[in-house]
Amino acid sequence: MTVFQFLTICDKLKRVLRTGWLLRGVPPSSAENVAAHSHTTAILAYLLALQAKESVDFHQLLLMALIHDIPEAETGDIPMSAQRADPSIREAKKKIENIAMQKIVTYIPKKLQPTITAAWSAYCKGTSIEARLVEVADRLATALHAAQLVKTGFPAEEFQTFVDHAVSTVLELQIPQAQEFITELRENFTI
Amino acid sequence: MTVFQFLTICDKLKRVLRTGWLLRGVPPSSAENVAAHSHTTAILAYLLALQAKESVDFHQLLLMALIHDIPEAETGDIPMSAQRADPSIREAKKKIENIAMQKIVTYIPKKLQPTITAAWSAYCKGTSIEARLVEVADRLATALHAAQLVKTGFPAEEFQTFVDHAVSTVLELQIPQAQEFITELRENFTI
Amino acid sequence: MTVFQFLTICDKLKRVLRTGWLLRGVPPSSAENVAAHSHTTAILAYLLALQAKESVDFHQLLLMALIHDIPEAETGDIPMSAQRADPSIREAKKKIENIAMQKIVTYIPKKLQPTITAAWSAYCKGTSIEARLVEVADRLATALHAAQLVKTGFPAEEFQTFVDHAVSTVLELQIPQAQEFITELRENFTI
Amino acid sequence: MTVFQFLTICDKLKRVLRTGWLLRGVPPSSAENVAAHSHTTAILAYLLALQAKESVDFHQLLLMALIHDIPEAETGDIPMSAQRADPSIREAKKKIENIAMQKIVTYIPKKLQPTITAAWSAYCKGTSIEARLVEVADRLATALHAAQLVKTGFPAEEFQTFVDHAVSTVLELQIPQAQEFITELRENFTI
Amino acid sequence: MTVFQFLTICDKLKRVLRTGWLLRGVPPSSAENVAAHSHTTAILAYLLALQAKESVDFHQLLLMALIHDIPEAETGDIPMSAQRADPSIREAKKKIENIAMQKIVTYIPKKLQPTITAAWSAYCKGTSIEARLVEVADRLATALHAAQLVKTGFPAEEFQTFVDHAVSTVLELQIPQAQEFITELRENFTI
Amino acid sequence: MTVFQFLTICDKLKRVLRTGWLLRGVPPSSAENVAAHSHTTAILAYLLALQAKESVDFHQLLLMALIHDIPEAETGDIPMSAQRADPSIREAKKKIENIAMQKIVTYIPKKLQPTITAAWSAYCKGTSIEARLVEVADRLATALHAAQLVKTGFPAEEFQTFVDHAVSTVLELQIPQAQEFITELRENFTI
Repeated sequence: MTVFQFLTICDKLKRVLRTGWLLRGVPPSSAENVAAHSHTTAILAYLLALQAKESVDFHQLLLMALIHDIPEAETGDIPMSAQRADPSIREAKKKIENIAMQKIVTYIPKKLQPTITAAWSAYCKGTSIEARLVEVADRLATALHAAQLVKTGFPAEEFQTFVDHAVSTVLELQIPQAQEFITELRENFTI
Repeated sequence: MTVFQFLTICDKLKRVLRTGWLLRGVPPSSAENVAAHSHTTAILAYLLALQAKESVDFHQLLLMALIHDIPEAETGDIPMSAQRADPSIREAKKKIENIAMQKIVTYIPKKLQPTITAAWSAYCKGTSIEARLVEVADRLATALHAAQLVKTGFPAEEFQTFVDHAVSTVLELQIPQAQEFITELRENFTI
Repeated sequence: MTVFQFLTICDKLKRVLRTGWLLRGVPPSSAENVAAHSHTTAILAYLLALQAKESVDFHQLLLMALIHDIPEAETGDIPMSAQRADPSIREAKKKIENIAMQKIVTYIPKKLQPTITAAWSAYCKGTSIEARLVEVADRLATALHAAQLVKTGFPAEEFQTFVDHAVSTVLELQIPQAQEFITELRENFTI
Repeated sequence: MTVFQFLTICDKLKRVLRTGWLLRGVPPSSAENVAAHSHTTAILAYLLALQAKESVDFHQLLLMALIHDIPEAETGDIPMSAQRADPSIREAKKKIENIAMQKIVTYIPKKLQPTITAAWSAYCKGTSIEARLVEVADRLATALHAAQLVKTGFPAEEFQTFVDHAVSTVLELQIPQAQEFITELRENFTI
Repeated sequence: MTVFQFLTICDKLKRVLRTGWLLRGVPPSSAENVAAHSHTTAILAYLLALQAKESVDFHQLLLMALIHDIPEAETGDIPMSAQRADPSIREAKKKIENIAMQKIVTYIPKKLQPTITAAWSAYCKGTSIEARLVEVADRLATALHAAQLVKTGFPAEEFQTFVDHAVSTVLELQIPQAQEFITELRENFTI
Repeated sequence: MTVFQFLTICDKLKRVLRTGWLLRGVPPSSAENVAAHSHTTAILAYLLALQAKESVDFHQLLLMALIHDIPEAETGDIPMSAQRADPSIREAKKKIENIAMQKIVTYIPKKLQPTITAAWSAYCKGTSIEARLVEVADRLATALHAAQLVKTGFPAEEFQTFVDHAVSTVLELQIPQAQEFITELRENFTI
């Protein structure tokens, strides 16, 4: 019911390590956490938006990027590999996160709830240009971090899947200005 | 299809940090992983079994304890807090883990699969004395580790929930020989 | 000169651990990094802004919060204690960060540079409502994280300075809606 | 004198990091601990036993695997390199571990002690099929983990010694069903 | 046979975490390593020496302090608790370390070996004022670090043993100028 | 004003991780700290000094090596990359460190201050053979550690700059006996 309570939950995202890295052997002490990932996502979404042909609501875009992974403070980060192994796991994950978000939102003061709820709904729907930019930035930020890991000695093969996933998301959601980023991403994905 | 492939998955459990500790601020570098937790669980289940009035199949008991968390190599450790927040999350988790286990078992050579599958099914069913001992040992091992964390300066309040959970499981599954353990657990849960 | 190059620098913020925690004994593996801190700062600045009497440019506010610590990717996080020990260290730090930011901005594509530069200048100037909200959120987010550390067993005395610093910043920059946050912060600063 | 006291010692194995990895530069936060290693050893010993021509006492085998490194909770993990550098260090290590185990066993309730003591003695003697399977599984599990480290970017040369050691143990202790595992191990020991 | 080879071994001390901390629950990522401990020991020995009534050879003293734990690069840090549990473990440890040192010294260029060997022998003998100062500084530096850990929330009871050990060493080796240090140490050993 | 207070500051160097490693992706849990680095520097300076043609004051040399980075307990480790990016950052860093050292020295008992102050001044001046040996050893120790990181899988290109820096310092400060070390360093800088 207070900003303090809600922020306490946001702060927990610093303790949620992204399982995609952990399961590939990235040491826990250097594994990216969800809060830090959201930071990169927001900046990247913003710079892609600046180059968009469509008109973009920057306020909405940044808010969406900042909150898009908040449910993981409750649910943890269910590995992408499990989600891909079986579509029903992906469905279960979405459901779990939605339940968690509904609970988390109740911690915000009542009159501030609608802004957050609206941004979350728009992100989940995924059709607006803001939602698509955030989704694409989410994948690209992950692939970018994979490239940094490869640069520190992790084998490219093990992390190639993150690039592939980013590429297909860019195509599917039609964000042409991400093309240059992908080109460089690929160039940087070896050592 | 080979022992090597299956063991490669088991080895991943060393990289799955238990989220209950992480979310309470235990540093990733000292957070218990699932493989290590399974080791304590197996020894504790064994010592409880030695004191059981019923006849216990030690072979089955130990096998069950060793494999009971293997699906988490695929799914990660979905926090207990999320499960308790909403019963449907608990259901989704069980379903996700079952799908994961069915996939993992296919990595074992065919002729060895039935032994593992049988132990997993019996554990999931949860009615045999072996399954109940493993379930109780699972909770008690977690509470024991919580007590060690409290001894190193973590505040008892934050971890009390693990003791409560262990106590109610012991009662529910009727393992009277665990009583002494619980008494000491409580005595050790302060500093 | 590309979004990719600039984001590569942003990604480094995940490797810059905040020295205030390290020097007080927080283990490196759980020490907050600058990217994660910026995420909390942005959300907190946003919720404070929603409650402001003045009209706030949310787009500017969020951008400012996201970039306010980017120079630390080059300079590291010079401890606050050193800054307070001698005013000339504080001056040197500001100068160092400004030089670093000027260099970092050159990595962004030319036509996107003015937006980032303008937000940085406004933040450094510190007079606009957006800049003041970010500054206050920066301090409160740090104090909030200190409170989480205290909850996991770190002694309150050692971290009290962060609360004091936040309180004086709120007063100085006149952000009355932060008062409720501070009240709760103080209540949560013991165990 | 109680199960709780004994388990408290077992729990310490989670804090004993294996020095073979640390000395080769594996970060402490991802270095395998002795409890987790014992878990892999037990599962591997079991699957090798399922394929044995001899009759195997699975109960004894699993118990032995679970306890074979318990003394390291007291003595730490003396590096294999030191042991190989001088035979008298190997002898001293064995002696130290035996003294430690005799002390640790006294923590178990009296009537449960003989089971543990018997398993430990049989393991130390090393002649029974169960003891030989555990010894082989111990080496293979270590080499398997080395292979996982190599997959995350550690250079194969530095860890080749663990494969060699496993191979010679398999030959010496005559566990033919481990041959397939070794073949795959070798195939996986490059990147 | 070269300075480079010898220094490569010294560099390994950074990877040898002190087991006394690990076994008491200090996270691996913040556990003191042997190289860092030797640094504190050298400075402390030096300051105690400056206050000595006897004439002290500072060159010898500092050299001794810098090398006194080098064998642990080979042997690891065998826990003090194990040594105290049984005197024969303490003897075995000394023997192991001496064998290791003799091997390590062979890596230094021949003409530089005698200086190192002489300092090591004098340290082991333990009668000279330099050797006694290093021994005392070794214990006091350990107790000082324990005090820092207690200040970050670790319970004083668990680490009291290090203070006791330091106090008895100071008395036994008769270093009266360490008294002030001990007084402050005790005052700082609570929170 | 007491040895205890001064040593408490020295102990903090164990918490100052060297940013050169962190920014290149070395996990915090295995990143070298300043205390451990000073230990290697001291031993290396000593062995170079033993081979010097000039007469060297070993007492001064070792003291200088032990204290040369103490100000970083207050200022943290400002990255070399930032210093090279702009000469004025390098100047600011020197100034900051000098201010910090002047403050730190006041913690030592008055009568012991001159010894430390004199060694610090001589090191800063940088002209004596002792100061030059410490400066060279500082660079070589850093490059040596880089070589160890490369051996554990970090890419040589990313760390080559440390070798180059060491080489140019050796030439500039004219320490010919370091040549052999550099030759081996280069040979070891690949895998």
